[in-house]
Amino acid sequence: MLQISQRGVALPPSPYRKLTPFAEAARQRGLTVHPLNIGQPDIETPPAMLAAVQRASIQVLEYSPTAGYPSYRHKLAEYYQRLGLPVEADDIIVTTGGSEAISFALLSCLNPGDEFIVPEPFYGPYSAFAVATGTHVVPVTALLEDNFALPPIAEFERKITPRTKAILICSPNNPTGYVYSRQELEQLKELCLRHKLYLLSDEAYREFCYDTAYTSALHLQGADEHIVLLDTISKRYSSCGARIGAIVTKNRALREVFFKLAQLRVSPPGLGQLLAEAAADLPETYFDHTKTEYLARRDLMLRRLRAMPGTRVPTPSGAFYVICHLPVDDADRFAQWLLEEFSYHGQTLMISPASGFYATPGLGRQQVRLAYVVNQGVINQAMDCLEAALQQYPGRQE
Amino acid sequence: MLQISQRGVALPPSPYRKLTPFAEAARQRGLTVHPLNIGQPDIETPPAMLAAVQRASIQVLEYSPTAGYPSYRHKLAEYYQRLGLPVEADDIIVTTGGSEAISFALLSCLNPGDEFIVPEPFYGPYSAFAVATGTHVVPVTALLEDNFALPPIAEFERKITPRTKAILICSPNNPTGYVYSRQELEQLKELCLRHKLYLLSDEAYREFCYDTAYTSALHLQGADEHIVLLDTISKRYSSCGARIGAIVTKNRALREVFFKLAQLRVSPPGLGQLLAEAAADLPETYFDHTKTEYLARRDLMLRRLRAMPGTRVPTPSGAFYVICHLPVDDADRFAQWLLEEFSYHGQTLMISPASGFYATPGLGRQQVRLAYVVNQGVINQAMDCLEAALQQYPGRQE
Repeated sequence: MLQISQRGVALPPSPYRKLTPFAEAARQRGLTVHPLNIGQPDIETPPAMLAAVQRASIQVLEYSPTAGYPSYRHKLAEYYQRLGLPVEADDIIVTTGGSEAISFALLSCLNPGDEFIVPEPFYGPYSAFAVATGTHVVPVTALLEDNFALPPIAEFERKITPRTKAILICSPNNPTGYVYSRQELEQLKELCLRHKLYLLSDEAYREFCYDTAYTSALHLQGADEHIVLLDTISKRYSSCGARIGAIVTKNRALREVFFKLAQLRVSPPGLGQLLAEAAADLPETYFDHTKTEYLARRDLMLRRLRAMPGTRVPTPSGAFYVICHLPVDDADRFAQWLLEEFSYHGQTLMISPASGFYATPGLGRQQVRLAYVVNQGVINQAMDCLEAALQQYPGRQE
Repeated sequence: MLQISQRGVALPPSPYRKLTPFAEAARQRGLTVHPLNIGQPDIETPPAMLAAVQRASIQVLEYSPTAGYPSYRHKLAEYYQRLGLPVEADDIIVTTGGSEAISFALLSCLNPGDEFIVPEPFYGPYSAFAVATGTHVVPVTALLEDNFALPPIAEFERKITPRTKAILICSPNNPTGYVYSRQELEQLKELCLRHKLYLLSDEAYREFCYDTAYTSALHLQGADEHIVLLDTISKRYSSCGARIGAIVTKNRALREVFFKLAQLRVSPPGLGQLLAEAAADLPETYFDHTKTEYLARRDLMLRRLRAMPGTRVPTPSGAFYVICHLPVDDADRFAQWLLEEFSYHGQTLMISPASGFYATPGLGRQQVRLAYVVNQGVINQAMDCLEAALQQYPGRQE
């Protein structure tokens, strides 16, 4: 018989997908389903960025250079420099979304069978990237009781084996919203220097920090060869569909490998790069507006969640997610019940059970991730639903 | 020391890249360098396709669905149906360029260590895709003397081992321009059925067939589970920078794996899909115009090449490349000499030595690939240069 590859079989499906048919069925029954389950912001893509594409005079939509248009790489370097990061255009390879940056990093830093350590809960697809690249995720558990702060470095040390090649972090974090402090990042840097590990830093949510100063991995000194920044414009400029990201490192040998991988797909999307380049001309206040909006949403969601008996929810300092403990037997079951059996004034909500963000089996069973990517009116409606649902749910458990 | 992964080290750099610094230096010396080395057409991207992007009303540039916009998948299915291919929208996953389709196919059909057989010369990056996916290219040599027709099936059979999982073909072929006949494809199909192999068919140049009827792998009957079509709009609509391709199969289990891989990168480029979808509204005559132009260029190039003593060049029936035997000691050396030491009325040309298209060491040493992606005036100038160069080149060898 024709066979599917073992890695193909082993690839986990997206945790988001499991609930999709139930949501579709609920919508077909006429319910409004509030989508708190995914990180697709409702924030307008800056019209000036779209206009740059729409105004462009293009005769032939050619391959861009493999590393991206030089003009865009220069403007992106300037963006990083404004944040105090020592990035030159040559340090940047423009990628097809942040996802390509993750692939490039794992393929270049790890051999098949090698391991990378990630604080859990983590962005679910990291596990699938590991399968696709023949590598292994090794989790170190961050606790809701600690606001999902960096677990003690001793726990990382305990997980290090001869096959460990990298630590992968995400700050501000998806799914927890935690923002690593300078001190936490310095500890990680020391660990990576001591054990000769790469520090892969996913900074997709960099611009969304609310109560805390932001530190990038590239702010750290003396570890240039170790640090790889994984980036994307998807969330920063509400441009998820552009598929423009970047992989940034001062490590020249590593960059050369990224470049060879980039040659395989010839070039990143051309139209998306035109859009991304126009971000350089946004007013300095652009992020203030979006941050003010997200902050108001976050505070509203926290206030509403905390008013529900039996919930426990840390205050996330960044990104646009909260992880919330719910008084339910099993969040997967609860999420499906919300779509299949519950409604409140013709509405229900879609949530992400947190089990999909943990590698350790059994963890996160009573936790859900909620994204505050919808406006405050919708958040209020969704919280009304959740409040009623928690009262009615037969599997309620304190 | 921090280590680069073995696959990262093993990745071959693009063969195109080696000559780039020499071309840049030549341009800096004031020479005009005619680019016959790459498949970047100078044909205008259909203005109606660009206009579709530029007219689109976009509030939030969201992730598209993982498999691509349903409206685009339907129109693409209709395009295939007009060619007589039994493709439904559900059989299609829109990819980020043809390159992503190649990755998905190798990751899903082959385990690490498995092999796929490819007639050589072949599109150079296939070797790098093999390294990136932990698989191995096994070449079967097609001969210039046979017009690069399909090698005898017995040669494929001899190369099959328990690790062989697929045959990868490209028709119309890059770099040879050969178009496989229905009969050749039937032979390959029988081989794949007999040995339980996938038939991966790269059809990027489908619309450019000049003297011969076109057969797609999906025209073949009774092997639906085996056949995977790898496609792209890059060449078809001169839209290389859009990064829109497709992977198409009737094999549902395999498609499910492609979909899981596609979830890793969430969605293909959104703006590029808008552009691609607008191709459905091009007039039926669109390809006639481009084909007429390419055919005239091909015939001009062949006429000029054949007038040079010592050359041997088959007539390619498709795509926009010719492989030509030149009376030189070593085409790599000759290509570099053209850029470093030669000029003719302030001009020279850049060519692709064919060694980069062979996996068997030593083959193609006297062959080059020339792309007729430039207009006839430029082709004439470039051929003037080549003619003069062959007379002057110190390594001339009959």
